[in-house]
Amino acid sequence: MNRFPFATYLTSNTDLDETMIHELVHQCMNKSVDKGAYLLRQGETCEYSIFVEKGLLKQFAIDDQGKEHILQFAPENWIVSDRASAYFNQPSEYFIQAIEDSNVVLFDEAFILQLAKSNASFLEFNHRQLHNHIRQLQRRILQLQSATASERYQHFVKVYPDLLLRVPLVQIASYLGITPESLSRVRRELAQQNRTILS
Amino acid sequence: MNRFPFATYLTSNTDLDETMIHELVHQCMNKSVDKGAYLLRQGETCEYSIFVEKGLLKQFAIDDQGKEHILQFAPENWIVSDRASAYFNQPSEYFIQAIEDSNVVLFDEAFILQLAKSNASFLEFNHRQLHNHIRQLQRRILQLQSATASERYQHFVKVYPDLLLRVPLVQIASYLGITPESLSRVRRELAQQNRTILS
Repeated sequence: MNRFPFATYLTSNTDLDETMIHELVHQCMNKSVDKGAYLLRQGETCEYSIFVEKGLLKQFAIDDQGKEHILQFAPENWIVSDRASAYFNQPSEYFIQAIEDSNVVLFDEAFILQLAKSNASFLEFNHRQLHNHIRQLQRRILQLQSATASERYQHFVKVYPDLLLRVPLVQIASYLGITPESLSRVRRELAQQNRTILS
Repeated sequence: MNRFPFATYLTSNTDLDETMIHELVHQCMNKSVDKGAYLLRQGETCEYSIFVEKGLLKQFAIDDQGKEHILQFAPENWIVSDRASAYFNQPSEYFIQAIEDSNVVLFDEAFILQLAKSNASFLEFNHRQLHNHIRQLQRRILQLQSATASERYQHFVKVYPDLLLRVPLVQIASYLGITPESLSRVRRELAQQNRTILS
């Protein structure tokens, strides 16, 4: 049995055998990060993909007016990274910050590429990850283009079911691309609808 | 010398040798599509990546209210596809439609995977494409979250310098996620600024 969430994740998502996974997990860097600590800052090149074993991270940009725009949250068993920055060795637009005390596993692009070269199953896994990432980003764009505040919020609840109690509402609003006031209104309306249905 | 734009594109972007490119180009399907014709419809699985040799395509979704949201335009030398749909063999959210009479080259995911397996240079090329796609989608999200109408328009002019005269303004507004009225206002303001600078 795997004691490490990252090992469990690799077992579930690749065909790598236990010995190989054991070796890999020991090649990666484990890190404890305090709430508020940064794992990437805008302007730095992203060096690592970050697997969250425990805790919660957010990936966000800050615009010229100093306003924060959240691209994604990464709770347990999520991987977060700016893969384009890592791959092209270019400055990232993003910050990655812990919003809870967290335990993470760090692995770099060289690690991924080397493993992908030597192992067809990992190559396939990495490919699936990239395509899945594209799928998620496309959905996010479509949502920002077309969904109402209420649809965005309901989608958030589905994607991140356990984050409602862990993330301040102002950050959820930032992720959704709506004002905190709109988010409050939507939550009030949905609560009212639920009360109506139940009464 | 290559007579085919797709061959020229492969020569510039991969280390494949001329003989191999010649063979590949002849394995792909060439197609002429009339203005208005569809190469993909929402709900279908995307089968092909489409290289535009001549003409102009758009990739867009239609929401529940029947409103069109353009993800990208693809003029000459662009590749357009829903790679997530093709890879996961799932229905696409998107339409791909010709907005000018166009000549395109079609190649499918199996073609890409087989080539990537047998050729390290093509594998690398495909990897670069996927990461570049992620980079573009991330930028698009950040823009939709944070950029003003004016910034969005100016960015569009930079990314698609020759499309201003080829695409109706209402479609440019749809791509930018702003109303046609906002776009007209922005264009008026920028024209006025330019006149002020020049006078």
